[in-house]
Amino acid sequence: MNKGLLVVVSAPSGCGKDTVIAKVLDKMKNDAYLSVSMTTRQMREGEADGVNYYFVSVEEFQENIRKGEMLEYTCYGENYYGTPVGPVKKLLNEGKTVFLIIEVEGGENVKRIFPEAVKIFIVPPSLQVLEKRLRSRATDSDEAIKARLLIAETEFRRACEYDYIVENDDLEDAVNDVMAIIRAEQLRINNMQNKLREVMKNA
Amino acid sequence: MNKGLLVVVSAPSGCGKDTVIAKVLDKMKNDAYLSVSMTTRQMREGEADGVNYYFVSVEEFQENIRKGEMLEYTCYGENYYGTPVGPVKKLLNEGKTVFLIIEVEGGENVKRIFPEAVKIFIVPPSLQVLEKRLRSRATDSDEAIKARLLIAETEFRRACEYDYIVENDDLEDAVNDVMAIIRAEQLRINNMQNKLREVMKNA
Repeated sequence: MNKGLLVVVSAPSGCGKDTVIAKVLDKMKNDAYLSVSMTTRQMREGEADGVNYYFVSVEEFQENIRKGEMLEYTCYGENYYGTPVGPVKKLLNEGKTVFLIIEVEGGENVKRIFPEAVKIFIVPPSLQVLEKRLRSRATDSDEAIKARLLIAETEFRRACEYDYIVENDDLEDAVNDVMAIIRAEQLRINNMQNKLREVMKNA
Repeated sequence: MNKGLLVVVSAPSGCGKDTVIAKVLDKMKNDAYLSVSMTTRQMREGEADGVNYYFVSVEEFQENIRKGEMLEYTCYGENYYGTPVGPVKKLLNEGKTVFLIIEVEGGENVKRIFPEAVKIFIVPPSLQVLEKRLRSRATDSDEAIKARLLIAETEFRRACEYDYIVENDDLEDAVNDVMAIIRAEQLRINNMQNKLREVMKNA
């Protein structure tokens, strides 16, 4: 069996990365999983440990960092958020595709631990469309939206660190593009060594 | 506009590469073309210059070789066969995907002239299936089939020089796999610079 594919997905806020990946996960059924993050924040009603997050204490989280067992992590307010490497490795060894939706900042560290990770950056059709989308959410103040757009601009400048760019204009197109990338990566020569051996069997 | 993609396809005889690529061309309509070869052999009835082949004299062919204008070429019997680089470049500049179905031998030279070329190797499910397919054609003698299988084996050993492996078990699956590879390659960061600039416009 081939090892699974680790797919890192980043995008500025408002580009619809969660929706795109949710649809892809839906299509790939048992072949793909979304990596579960670890956090030190309180569990909220309706949440479950190991589903929404792995809920741990600050001491446990810091112990994980010390042991080098966090793929990436960040502090947000008073809480830690991050990706433990163990569950990702386990799924990859089972041949599963694992999606990791992370900040642009976290991408570098992932690539250090998993150099074979496939990095996808999702973009909107334009900054104007992104602004329109952020405004239509109506959850943020004008100020917050302007701040988000500024962050988006600096994040776009780091898109060149990714392997693939997917435009999320039409959702279905974006989903199909991500699916095409995954299929193509599975067909790459380094992932097809088992198949080649199989073909040559009994030669 | 982005430059088109040059897709090199090789496979041992009997793997169905022509059928797979014909189907892909059909699906891609005006976006993709099959590179037309140049030959010094006589034009046969029903053939047209520039459609089946570019028909040229031995002198013209050799002149092309001297000028470095052949992407790859081979001698077969008394005739030259090869791929002139000019028409390929023209189509790529128009943003078209160009397929080049060539012998394993010719692949290296193409990669030297077009390092960005995408190389796909098509394999059968197994050597046993390949043998069955060759026998079912009923065009070759037992001896010829054995010779083809031996050549196939040495060609398989060079599959590692390709970027992607596509198994042709079910034709429709193989066609979809080639389509996925092309779409993914179009989404690669180096082919998406124009799109990134477009997104950032008016930033």
